[in-house]
Amino acid sequence: MSLLVTGSMALDTITTPHGTREAVLGGAASFFSVGARHFTDVRLVAVIGDDFPDEHVAMLRDRGIDIEGLERRAGAKTFRWTGRYAGRMDVAETLDTQLNVLGEFKPTLPGKFTDTPFAFLANGDPVTQAWVRDQLSPNAFVFLDTMNFWIEGSRDALLEAIRKVNGVVMNDDEARALGGSDNLIASVNRIADMGVSTLVVKKGEHGAILMKDGELFALPAYPLEAVFDPTGAGDTFASGFMGAVAESGDTTFQGLKRALAYGTVVASFTVEGFGLERLLEIDREEIDRRLEVFLKFTGWE
Amino acid sequence: MSLLVTGSMALDTITTPHGTREAVLGGAASFFSVGARHFTDVRLVAVIGDDFPDEHVAMLRDRGIDIEGLERRAGAKTFRWTGRYAGRMDVAETLDTQLNVLGEFKPTLPGKFTDTPFAFLANGDPVTQAWVRDQLSPNAFVFLDTMNFWIEGSRDALLEAIRKVNGVVMNDDEARALGGSDNLIASVNRIADMGVSTLVVKKGEHGAILMKDGELFALPAYPLEAVFDPTGAGDTFASGFMGAVAESGDTTFQGLKRALAYGTVVASFTVEGFGLERLLEIDREEIDRRLEVFLKFTGWE
Repeated sequence: MSLLVTGSMALDTITTPHGTREAVLGGAASFFSVGARHFTDVRLVAVIGDDFPDEHVAMLRDRGIDIEGLERRAGAKTFRWTGRYAGRMDVAETLDTQLNVLGEFKPTLPGKFTDTPFAFLANGDPVTQAWVRDQLSPNAFVFLDTMNFWIEGSRDALLEAIRKVNGVVMNDDEARALGGSDNLIASVNRIADMGVSTLVVKKGEHGAILMKDGELFALPAYPLEAVFDPTGAGDTFASGFMGAVAESGDTTFQGLKRALAYGTVVASFTVEGFGLERLLEIDREEIDRRLEVFLKFTGWE
Repeated sequence: MSLLVTGSMALDTITTPHGTREAVLGGAASFFSVGARHFTDVRLVAVIGDDFPDEHVAMLRDRGIDIEGLERRAGAKTFRWTGRYAGRMDVAETLDTQLNVLGEFKPTLPGKFTDTPFAFLANGDPVTQAWVRDQLSPNAFVFLDTMNFWIEGSRDALLEAIRKVNGVVMNDDEARALGGSDNLIASVNRIADMGVSTLVVKKGEHGAILMKDGELFALPAYPLEAVFDPTGAGDTFASGFMGAVAESGDTTFQGLKRALAYGTVVASFTVEGFGLERLLEIDREEIDRRLEVFLKFTGWE
């Protein structure tokens, strides 16, 4: 079943111990679309400026992503992010952020998108996330992602958006900030008390935790010998997770556990190359082969 | 089957966000003995000074631990450690260390201990670890633990001790230091290349990794809402792991995976109280109940 994503499209300049890449395609919606297309039809809702290279648009179209919701705004510039990773590469240092068109992003969905049964509202202003969610069917299965900027600066709007969705995805620091405890499990339980019925906590190299109706499940990260660039790992984790759910339609705890493993595997490819590089090389067969390895790595039998 | 442990006995002064405890029973051998006795007969080899309270000796004896290898040295003082945990409590800050009797610790095993089939050489001078290992039968199944002090300062002696044992237990920072890579999986693989056939990497709140003959398995930590005092978590992790192996006699990959889960569960009790407090309250039934919860938390079905 189709899966809609709304979020940022960016031109990223990234430095890691392995080198620097300038103005490569990035942003949560780009990463999510390219990851999720392995599982289902993807509908992209995002905004770019007239500096955005045509080749990226063509690439997304060629990969089967429905770009009817991609708005190119004349006279405006694309969102740009410059960041650096060092040492263990577990934290990105932001060197520069230029919001540009993203600052006024409040999309109206193309009519044919409003019946999309699955949706992911990538990190962004929770007022906009709620606005998009309200354009979808009340029966749609919708997750949102957020970050500390909104948890600290727009807490009420975020809690309102959260009440409108089926689940939330965030990283461990964000979960601690929202839950208000240094202890991650305590924070997860407090977030459940806020009315979040399903929560996915991404812990980077330490794996992920799933909470559904108070029940917990955890997975380690995929064991990789080398990480080239962590950019997009979180968004492609979400793409594998939501993609697997949209593909199977299985939103039970068991279905979400399996989806969590797909999220882990898709993210593991992302970090093996700069930006979308590696993710554009792979096919579904490679994802499923790595899933088998991962199930062995985490399985009891 | 019996399990021998050699390592430090300490009087610890610990400060956590939950308070301070002065001169409580600590040290790797204490923690290990009290954890492992739930699984098998434990033989303790350690040294204390004449400042060591009799009540602690009585407690160990009452718990069924064979203390024939516990040497009280007259005119000497027990090893003392003072440390502090703050915030997420993932790292201990050492405020003071007084080696005292531990500085000259080079035990000769009681004759009846030399045929012990399982042994754990807790963190200590690798020359002493090798010395103890050589007093055991060549067929004994022996693991050692180590730390950065020896990895950096006594690397050759450590590698020699490692070649004499069946496996190594260390935390993730120590594995990175020994393996020489910021990437933990790369470090694990390099340690395997050094001739370590089985390695357990303890990652604290992030779980543990097991490597045997190049094959990997990972577990998250037990989900706890509150951590009171992490002291002894690593040693009791090892006690559950080695205890389960000594109990079952199963040293296959499958047996070690199950033992890793027991290590996780035993460590989860340790951190719920100051020092040995919580670990002294529980019985085997509680351990097995928590194991069931943990298997659900990590299992696919």
